[in-house]
Formats: sequence, C-alpha cells, structure tokens
Amino acid sequence: MAEKMRIALAQINTIVGDFAGNSRKVLDYVEKAKVYQADVIIFPELTLCGYPPEDLLHKPKFIEDSGLCLEELARKIKDITAIIGFVRQDGADIYNSAAVVSNGNFCGFYDKMYLPNYSVFDEKRYFKSGKCNLLFDICGIKAGINICEDIWHPDGPYKAQKESGAQIIFNLSASPYYVNKHRERQCLISNIAVKERVHFAFVNLVGGQDELVFDGASSFFSPEGKIMSSARQFQEDVLIVEAEFSVKNNVEKKNLEVIKIDTMLKEKTSKVEMKIEEERSAEWEVYSALTLGLKDYVVKNGFEKVVLGISGGIDSAFAAAVAVDALGRDNVIGVIMPSKYSSDQTQKDAKILADNLGIKSYCLPIGEVFNEYLDSLGNIFKGLKENETEENLQARVRGNFLMALSNKFGWLVLTTGNKSEMSVGYCTLYGDMAGGFAVIKDVPKTLVYKLSNYVNNVKGKEVIPLSILERAPSAELKFNQKDQDSLPEYEILDAILKEYIENDKGLEQIISLGFDRPLVTNIISKVDRNEYKRRQAPPGIKITEKAFGRDRRMPIVNKYR
Amino acid sequence: MAEKMRIALAQINTIVGDFAGNSRKVLDYVEKAKVYQADVIIFPELTLCGYPPEDLLHKPKFIEDSGLCLEELARKIKDITAIIGFVRQDGADIYNSAAVVSNGNFCGFYDKMYLPNYSVFDEKRYFKSGKCNLLFDICGIKAGINICEDIWHPDGPYKAQKESGAQIIFNLSASPYYVNKHRERQCLISNIAVKERVHFAFVNLVGGQDELVFDGASSFFSPEGKIMSSARQFQEDVLIVEAEFSVKNNVEKKNLEVIKIDTMLKEKTSKVEMKIEEERSAEWEVYSALTLGLKDYVVKNGFEKVVLGISGGIDSAFAAAVAVDALGRDNVIGVIMPSKYSSDQTQKDAKILADNLGIKSYCLPIGEVFNEYLDSLGNIFKGLKENETEENLQARVRGNFLMALSNKFGWLVLTTGNKSEMSVGYCTLYGDMAGGFAVIKDVPKTLVYKLSNYVNNVKGKEVIPLSILERAPSAELKFNQKDQDSLPEYEILDAILKEYIENDKGLEQIISLGFDRPLVTNIISKVDRNEYKRRQAPPGIKITEKAFGRDRRMPIVNKYR
Repeated sequence: MAEKMRIALAQINTIVGDFAGNSRKVLDYVEKAKVYQADVIIFPELTLCGYPPEDLLHKPKFIEDSGLCLEELARKIKDITAIIGFVRQDGADIYNSAAVVSNGNFCGFYDKMYLPNYSVFDEKRYFKSGKCNLLFDICGIKAGINICEDIWHPDGPYKAQKESGAQIIFNLSASPYYVNKHRERQCLISNIAVKERVHFAFVNLVGGQDELVFDGASSFFSPEGKIMSSARQFQEDVLIVEAEFSVKNNVEKKNLEVIKIDTMLKEKTSKVEMKIEEERSAEWEVYSALTLGLKDYVVKNGFEKVVLGISGGIDSAFAAAVAVDALGRDNVIGVIMPSKYSSDQTQKDAKILADNLGIKSYCLPIGEVFNEYLDSLGNIFKGLKENETEENLQARVRGNFLMALSNKFGWLVLTTGNKSEMSVGYCTLYGDMAGGFAVIKDVPKTLVYKLSNYVNNVKGKEVIPLSILERAPSAELKFNQKDQDSLPEYEILDAILKEYIENDKGLEQIISLGFDRPLVTNIISKVDRNEYKRRQAPPGIKITEKAFGRDRRMPIVNKYR
Repeated sequence: MAEKMRIALAQINTIVGDFAGNSRKVLDYVEKAKVYQADVIIFPELTLCGYPPEDLLHKPKFIEDSGLCLEELARKIKDITAIIGFVRQDGADIYNSAAVVSNGNFCGFYDKMYLPNYSVFDEKRYFKSGKCNLLFDICGIKAGINICEDIWHPDGPYKAQKESGAQIIFNLSASPYYVNKHRERQCLISNIAVKERVHFAFVNLVGGQDELVFDGASSFFSPEGKIMSSARQFQEDVLIVEAEFSVKNNVEKKNLEVIKIDTMLKEKTSKVEMKIEEERSAEWEVYSALTLGLKDYVVKNGFEKVVLGISGGIDSAFAAAVAVDALGRDNVIGVIMPSKYSSDQTQKDAKILADNLGIKSYCLPIGEVFNEYLDSLGNIFKGLKENETEENLQARVRGNFLMALSNKFGWLVLTTGNKSEMSVGYCTLYGDMAGGFAVIKDVPKTLVYKLSNYVNNVKGKEVIPLSILERAPSAELKFNQKDQDSLPEYEILDAILKEYIENDKGLEQIISLGFDRPLVTNIISKVDRNEYKRRQAPPGIKITEKAFGRDRRMPIVNKYR
C-alpha cells in the first residue's frame, strides 16, 4: 500500500536564549503547517534555545528551562507530529537532541551523534555524542532523524537508519553561511539521497546570531537525488512538501529500535505546489547575508538605529548601503568628519552618498579637537617627528564622536573596515575600529568593489557614486596618502591573504604560486603582528570559509614566522 | 637488585611558536641535568612549540616544523634520556605527544589520551586521542608517560601502566594557574601515587602566554603519596630527584607493549639534595601570577616599557605596583590625567604613588580636549541633559592620550580595570578599557584591596598610599561620584558575581543564599548586557577558576534572563 505524507519544513529565525519567543514561533508555524494539512513539521537544530547557545549551556538552570519549555510546548501541539530541537539532559550529561512530539505527547528523541568541534563550532565543549541510533514509524512510514553534522560524516547515522528500513531522513540543521556553502550542502544531501535511495528533508536555521548568519535554503530531495522543493535563502519560510511511500504497518525487526508514533496520516483536501528557488548570484548571496546579519544583530540586541562615519570612501559607502537595506533609511545616520587632509571631492562624495541613500547626515569636523590633542601633547612630543601617532589620533577623534552620538542617542555604531585591512592591521584600534558591529569585517576589499557595483546595478542607479568607485583608495590621514603607498594592489593583497588566512599556506608555498618573496614576507608578518588588534575588534558577519573571531583562534604571543 | 635513577624535572618557560628558542632552552637544560648526573630529563607538555599553540596547529608547515625540530634536537641529545613534548603527525591526524630521546636517537613516543575541551582548552579542535598505551624500560626500570589531562581522569593511562608493572609515572603538563590549583594538583597526584604505589614525577610548564600563567610547581612523589621534592612556583627551575627501584632486566610480557631504551644508569659521584618549597599565602601566589603574566606578555611580545594612567585610585595604584615588580621601575611610566572632577587628594595621591614606586610620571589634564569635544558636539547635543556620554568622553580622552604615548614611544598601554567592573560594565570601551593588556582584569575589587595591603606589608612600607586604600572608590567622572552610588558594596557585589560567573548559579539560587532580589536581578542583568564590552577588552591574566576571555564564551545576542 502507498500513502502520501505531507511535511512542513519550518525554516524559522530563532533567538539564542529566548525560550518563550522561540516557543511562540514554533506554535505559529505549527498552525501554519496545519492549514496546509501537513502530517509532520520539522524545525531547525536546537529550536528552543537557539543556536549556538555557547556557555549558556554551562548554566544548570538553562538546561532545566530547556526541558520545561519542551514539556510545556508538547502539551500544546495537537493534530500534527512535530520534530523540535532541544537540549536533552541525562544526569550530568547533555545532548544536542531532537524531540518527536505528537498529539500533545513527547514520544521520543534522537541525540546528535557527530559533534562539530572545528571552525566556529565548539560542540564537544558541551555535549556528549548520542549513542543510540533509532527509527521512528509514523503511520507505517519509517523515518530517521539526523542533526546537522551527522550528515557531513561518511558514516553518519542515516546509513544504519536506511539499513533498518528508513524511507525518509529528516535533518535538523544550524548550518552557518559562507560563500558557496549552500551548493556544498545541496551536493552532499543529493548524494546521500541517491546512495541510500531515501527521501531527504533538510531544514536549516535562518537568521543572524553574533558573527554567524544562517541562510536557511531548506530543501527536499527525492531518492533519485533530485531537488524537489527548496525554501528561500535568508528569510523565514515554511516549505510544504509531499511524497508517496509504501506503508507496512507491521514493524519488521531490524537492527535499530523503532519508535511507533501513535497517529494517522491526514485526509488531504488540498494539493501541494512544490517550488524550487532559482539560483542566485554570489553577489546576491553575500549581500543578503550582510543585510540579514546586520539587521538581526541590531534588532535582536534591542537597537533601532545605527550610526556610521561616511568618509567618501568605498568601505563606508558600501556599509551604509547595506545598513539602509537592512534597517531602512530612517534608521541610518551618517556622520561626515572631515580633516585638513580630506579632499573636497571625498567630502562632496560623502554628501552625495547620504543624499542617494536618503539618510540623515551630520558634519563634525575633527580639526579643532585634533589640534587640542596636539597642543596638550606638545610638551611631551617636542622635537619628535610626526608618525602614525598623529594619524591614529585623527581616527580616534572620529571614533569618539561616533561613540558620543551612540551614548547620547542610543544608536549602535557600525565600523566599516574590510577584511583586507583587518588582516594587515591597516586600521586604528579605538579609532575606525570603534563600534558595536563590523559589517564588512569578513569582506575582502576586492569583493567590496564587486558588491558596490552589484548594489548600483540592482538599484538601477548610482547609489554609490561612481567617483567613489573610481578613486584610488585612501585613509586620508596625511597629505596625498594612498592605500597603495604601504600596501600592494588589492587584487594581489587579497590573493595572498586568502592563501595565508583561509588556506593556511606557508611563506614558501605562497611564493611558489608566483608571488614576490619580500612582498609575501611583509604581508604575512603584518597579519601575524596585528592579532592584538583583531582581538579587540567588534564582531562582524562571517561570509568566508575562515573569518576572524571564533573561527580563527591565534595566539597573540607567537614567535612562529 | 635495586638501582637508583636520577631524574631532572625541567620546569622551563617556553614561547609559543618559537621552535628555535625552545630547542635551545631544551639543550641548555639537558646540559644542566648532565652536570647533576641525571639519567632522565623531563620537559613540560608541547615543549617544542609551546602551549597552547591554538590555530597555529592548522598550519601544515607548523606541524612539519615540529617534526623537523624534534629530529634535529634528538641528534644533539647524548648521554641522557630526554622526554620532550611535541606535535606528532600521522597522516592527516596530529597528536599531543611525548618523545623519548636517548643517545642521539628517537626511541619512541606516547600520545596523550585524554584531551581537555573545556574552560580555556580546545584540544579536541586539533588533536586525536592517543590510542596506544605503552611502557618504557629504562635500564630495567619501568616508566609510564602521561600528559597533563591524562592524570585528571579516573581511568587515566597510568592505571594500565601500573598493571603492566610501571614503577614510576612521568607527567608532562601545561596546567594553567588559578587560585588553589596548585593544592588541587598536589592532592590529585599524591592520591594517584598512593593508590597505584608508584613514584610520580610531575613536570609543569612555567610562564605567561596571553591570558594564561603556568605556575610550574613541578614535584616528585613517593609511592606513599609523600611529596619528596618540589620546584619553585612562577620561576624556571630544574628539580633533581632520585629514587631507588628494583630492577628486572628481563622484560615480562604484560598487557602493554614495552619499549626498551638502550642506555645505562650513570655512576653517581654526587649526592642529590631534595628540597621542598614552603607553602606560600594565596596573596603571594596571585601577586606572583600577575607579575609573571605581565612580564611575559610584555617581553614575549617584544616590548620593554609600559604606560598606564594613574588616577589616585586603588586599581591603577595596584596595577602600577605590579608593573614595577614585573618590569622594573625604569620601564613603567605613569600618566596623571586630571579633570575638573578630580579631587586635590586623588591627584596628590597619584603623585605620591609615582614617587613611592620611583617611576617617571607625566601630567596631562584632559579639560581642554574634553571641552573642545563638547563644543564640537554642542549643536547636535543642544537642549539635551548630560549623561554617561560626557563621562565616557572623559575616559576616552584619557585613553587617547595613553594610546598617543604608546604610538609615539612604543610603550605598551596597560589597562587597570578589575573583574568586578568588567563584570557589570562599570568601565568605558575605548576609554579606560583602551590598552594592550589588562593586568587585573580577573581580580575582583575586594581582592585588589587585599593584594594592595599585601604589597605594603611585603615591602614593609606604604608603597600604595594609605589614603588611596581608605578612600571610597570613585570613577571621578562627575561631581561627588562614588562607585557605591550605582553599585552595592564590593563585598556584596563580588559575592554575587562569584556565584553568577564562576559558579554558574541562577537568580533564584543566588537569592536563596540570602541576597536581595532586586539587587541580584540588577547585577545579573548588568553582567549579561555588558558582554559586548568584554568582547572588545584586551586580554588579561586568568587567576580565578573562570576568567573572561577564552574561558567564558557567552553570546552577545542573548535573551536568556
């Protein structure tokens, strides 16, 4: 006998620690799924406490609350089978677990077996690995549950589940975004579906959490590995899918224990329209990640408005464009802070940018405060040459202006440094690095250019003035300064940085790719020496395979060259 | 037959990534041990690359260098058996390993079995667990090797080693300091020695590495669990110990493989004087940890001098005292930066402090720069009340002055905030938080008082002026401000913070200890809300069981209350 099962993939945006809010959202999506006559609804990994909860997991009360929250929620979920991520406690151990809830009852759980402990992940810090693989029988259809990393391992639990008769695999994920991750995931899942000849429902978290953005892109695959339906990236969504399964009501004895869920498939009076999201460009993806990451950081932290310095340069212009798309023009304030080294053109461009974006802007020249600093320090600095001290001071006056506005009006300060600068330390601690969130911290300068052009193309007009795009980049901290006075062309710099930082190549290996020895030596040394600055940088959105922050944990005291 | 084996416990101060320097140090200590006619010398965990190397372990070249470094070193070590920590590569996997080197040859290795992945440790991020337990036969004496965490586990490899006939256990450690850790360790090892009836040689790393201080305190225990000899805490040392073992030259077949080291015990012409370090006070320990941690951070990062603001308050006074003891008076510069809110008495006290310490000091009043900021912001702030904005601005002018001195003269800026302030956010980002190293970041205010009294007692004079110790603490950022206007008494605050941060207790649990509900609610909320500030704080020395930094990984976006 064949039966159709209808499944809702609830791609929701949870908030870490918000048991009440996340529960409400689960119930909302349960109601939505019922309208579509879904038999089963699946939520992302650690639905109830959000992901990653980090050291909140060390608080016994937090674990207790997670259990209570699930109990309370289970009672409210009727007429559907829901699979919900939660922290399961067993004595002194905790597990990253998925609860199966049906008709007001908690029916069973699956504990994640493979715990990621690399890159941004620290799951072995908290969880024990699940020891007990099992299957669920939902109206005669055999389903296996996997949680995120489980499917990234060639011996994942799905194999044994299939051997014991699984017809469909549900994967609850919190898989953070970086460029191309989406395609990697689809490829991986498609291969599993084909190899194991199972249907595969992948549900991913969506939303920003500190440095991470989860991109959703939940999807449903046929046993032929064909993608049958997919959800939008970077937005909440509920994907309703349906497939036909042969049904055996007598549970065969196999290797794995089978938990029978006492429920019935629904009579369907509606049809399911499966939809596949179109492929989007890499620029669209990164830009969407940045806007969602920024929006969620601001809103989830209880802010409404952001303020940033706009210099007439490309980094701040692009960051401002992201902010406007993330928060709306009324919630973005630009501050122009010219000095005697600012050219007329950059100041003009900053004003044009503010007009193009329709944001409010202030002008706060830094010269008088700067001169007052020089006067105060005059005695101590007497007879000494100007150097980076004076450059840094200017950047710090600007940082202080922005922080003063932040303190007075409750606006969150955005910093606008890119990954290339952060890498080589071409930035001032407590100056342009001062702020709550670093929007483009993980975006290399060359990509900032590409994305700026992308913005202008998408908007169909010159949002970021062409003269900004075309002018040689400059920090404007001394006369006629250009970035390329002290750095190589950004195309070359970014290529070297990618090899050193993302690919962990050494000096000789990078030189063997055709780069100049003294140049590579110099760049690598700058990256190493500036770890102390990055340690004090605000968080920013990870978009590459290896970002700074939790993703790259380098010692500051470090004599390795 | 009974033979005496003489062992050198080389408690050395390594530097992360410094293969060349660490190797030289190993050879120096090998020579020292030979003078004492030692048969065996043991070094701390990961001797060659330093501890913890963190993500340097992701660089293939780093791993290769570790292997090459050991090979080269092995050739140079003659007439002694040396046990040296290194990173062992096997295909795509790496192990936290100990090499046994004798007469110019690499004779075998032991891979650490238990990898710590809690607190400040991330070893599962890098290493595989050792799978192969074994014994070494050194001239008929059976020795088992353990590495650090191995002995903290009730089923540690020493058990199976003893069952196979181990007469002595060598433990190579990099066990970081916190208050009372030393006694915990001694207790643990003594119990193992008694339970397994083995001699036990514990060699611990010494020195500062970023936020960690390793306190050494290497020691040697008899099979009765009695401490026979111990090394100094917080200093490099070589402990020469000797014990008598019954010797069987035929290796019995037991469970574990036994590797026979082809060497002979030395004829001894000298005697060993075993020495036991006296018990020191908790204040001595913490103060020593702070001075060593600071000294190593400064020196290992290539700095000579430090600069710090001295306000006439207790935190900066104590931090300055630590700096002088760590680096010498000539390497510490104090800066007095009074405002109109600074009382005559605090300014006077700051000067007395500088005189007492014999350090150079500058005076840089902040009023004029501060007023210039207010003028510049006057239009935007028109009609608005003064609030924390103006307080923070003053702190930031001070931060900028210190950073300008740092940039101009190459001095490292020390921040002087204590753990109580860092916890509740009673500090200004880019203001008093601006600097390279936060000396007393993990020292609660109540302990700052105790340690200040300790300094005066030890020096036998009023180094920190009594009027500083007696005056009610104040940030002096507005008229008649006192810390206790917005915070409870520090005795109460520190008690609550300890329960919340170090013990991970929740609101109700803390209240049940007898604290006031609104107060605890308020304090907890301040701790949670200020995570964003701590994320941008400079590193500082861990002295408690849970410090901020790598030790406590909290999300910033966090709605858990």
